Amino acid sequence: MTTGLARSTVAGKVDLLLGSGLVVPVGDALSSGGRPASRFAFQPRARTVLAADIGASHVRVALTDLNGEVLAEERADMPVAAGPETLLGFVVDSGKRLLDESQCPENLAGIGIGLPGPVQHATGRPVKPPIMPGWDGFDVVGFVQRSLPSPVLVDNDVNIMALGERTGFWPDADDLLFVKVATGIGSGVISSGQLQRGSDGTAGDLGHVRASRGQDIVCRCGNTGCLEAIASGDAVARFLATQGLDATNGADVIALASNGNIVAIQALRQAGRDIGEVLATCVNLLNPSVIVIGGSMAAAGEHLMAGVREVVYHRSLPLATTNLRIILSRAGERAAIMGASQLVCQHILSPEGIEAELASLASAG
Amino acid sequence: MTTGLARSTVAGKVDLLLGSGLVVPVGDALSSGGRPASRFAFQPRARTVLAADIGASHVRVALTDLNGEVLAEERADMPVAAGPETLLGFVVDSGKRLLDESQCPENLAGIGIGLPGPVQHATGRPVKPPIMPGWDGFDVVGFVQRSLPSPVLVDNDVNIMALGERTGFWPDADDLLFVKVATGIGSGVISSGQLQRGSDGTAGDLGHVRASRGQDIVCRCGNTGCLEAIASGDAVARFLATQGLDATNGADVIALASNGNIVAIQALRQAGRDIGEVLATCVNLLNPSVIVIGGSMAAAGEHLMAGVREVVYHRSLPLATTNLRIILSRAGERAAIMGASQLVCQHILSPEGIEAELASLASAG
Repeated sequence: MTTGLARSTVAGKVDLLLGSGLVVPVGDALSSGGRPASRFAFQPRARTVLAADIGASHVRVALTDLNGEVLAEERADMPVAAGPETLLGFVVDSGKRLLDESQCPENLAGIGIGLPGPVQHATGRPVKPPIMPGWDGFDVVGFVQRSLPSPVLVDNDVNIMALGERTGFWPDADDLLFVKVATGIGSGVISSGQLQRGSDGTAGDLGHVRASRGQDIVCRCGNTGCLEAIASGDAVARFLATQGLDATNGADVIALASNGNIVAIQALRQAGRDIGEVLATCVNLLNPSVIVIGGSMAAAGEHLMAGVREVVYHRSLPLATTNLRIILSRAGERAAIMGASQLVCQHILSPEGIEAELASLASAG
Repeated sequence: MTTGLARSTVAGKVDLLLGSGLVVPVGDALSSGGRPASRFAFQPRARTVLAADIGASHVRVALTDLNGEVLAEERADMPVAAGPETLLGFVVDSGKRLLDESQCPENLAGIGIGLPGPVQHATGRPVKPPIMPGWDGFDVVGFVQRSLPSPVLVDNDVNIMALGERTGFWPDADDLLFVKVATGIGSGVISSGQLQRGSDGTAGDLGHVRASRGQDIVCRCGNTGCLEAIASGDAVARFLATQGLDATNGADVIALASNGNIVAIQALRQAGRDIGEVLATCVNLLNPSVIVIGGSMAAAGEHLMAGVREVVYHRSLPLATTNLRIILSRAGERAAIMGASQLVCQHILSPEGIEAELASLASAG
């Protein structure tokens, strides 16, 4: 991991950072011409990160190193609708336990939190999250910092999954789209190597884009024909139930397909085509080199992927798909924790983060 | 205009830049705590830029200052199909004339060139451009630098129009989509304040996204139902011709609508709806704060815009459109020249550009 900063940014301050053990030189200590080496790497074990993945019905808290490797973890089943005090209370208590049990609790670099709804990037506050009653505008950062005085970074769960997948498996893919297919459908957009949140933090919300099929199907958002209303795990289950099959959610759909049920397999492939239709537009607009399909429905594997690929390659410009890979998530369940940890790493690697580190080193004498 | 670089990046080198006249301090020369001022501005007249806008059938070359203000300009009607030597030969000859007539020909900071096709960002070479025979893979930078030894930046015309529009009129809009509606349809994507080109330089290509209408209409790309095949100026003209009206191109359509022809007005509004349908997906994916409609068909004004707005506000998530403005281009015909100039400014404001400037100051003694 390199800082990505201009050499001159760290000039004159490198000795301080080297002395702290946070930074080590990479390659030659001196390059040609007597100038200092331009590449330094963070020492992954020099600091720890608390990463929290809050989902619709679970919460997971992990202590990681700066590479996102999990050192210890706690998990609980808890509905996000139980409200911010309950959920974030668990994050804080669990975080304290994990830190106390670690060897160096004072080494905490920061706390990264993923939430299942839109988050205002500048403040870390949820913005009108549809499945999170009581969370709208809640001061997540302030609440956590009262117990754990450390930098707190908050983002949407699909955004951090995109970050985790890219950091862990596609570090060279500067343009990557992560698509979560589960109860709902959403995406995380990475362009020019940077997670894109848009002007209100809603970027990547593909679930309510209109698909060409299902114009008569009403979505929970109030519109008709939304992608989520015809291709999410719940939507496919609803369709299978109308065909007389015993399916109430995405897991049932996957189980039926795994058992070779041809109706379920066909429905998954059609859901893939519907998703592919929307992704074809994304490919023309963003020209990513990698599209990752994740979320619980990714367990449907090639049944879903075949439909996605079929339509994306049919409907996208040839030039935009020459180098395009469409693949299943490799991070799987770990994507969110890896991404939440990465949020903190990116923060401490930023110019502001470096300045803060230097200030704390200076004040420590 | 500020550099956007971390303060420490320029630390210790500021005096050199101030001495060169390229940079002046903004606000207090000293901020609190005795640290140097963190904001500096480029002196717009300290350097000049050659900006070239090569279109399907015209070429325009302008000498501008660092603010993109045009100091002198030449223009010619010339088909891009005449080939790179002819077109770039005009750019070079015209550029030399403009520089010779200027007061300080040695002040040239660089040359920005917009081309009507996909451009590989790293090399500035056109990549399989559909309307530019003879240009595929041509070394634009090398050709121009043989006559004008200066940094040469090349990009797609819609990308530079997006850059020009944003720099000139929406400097605070970090997420902006510029849509060119003319003979074809394309867009330039700015996310997090940065022009996005995608992994192969084809980002923003909305012309061949499938619209829900016109599934039987064959597009010049070989697919059916592409947005460009039903909503571009040529497409609307073709439709009006089938209705017995005298229209062969977009200008004819606009003339008919201006004269109050109700069939033309209805067709423009429908084209706006078709474009709006694709833009609704873009809004959900990118969450821009500004969508600018430009290109020759923007002259259709509110007829087109009404259709765009109608569908975007209907089909996008309410949260994503709360702060969204959809407006006609203000830069108009100047967008491309402004953007080509801005390409060069961004280059000389980059860390690499600053280093090059410092090196040239040092070698000049």
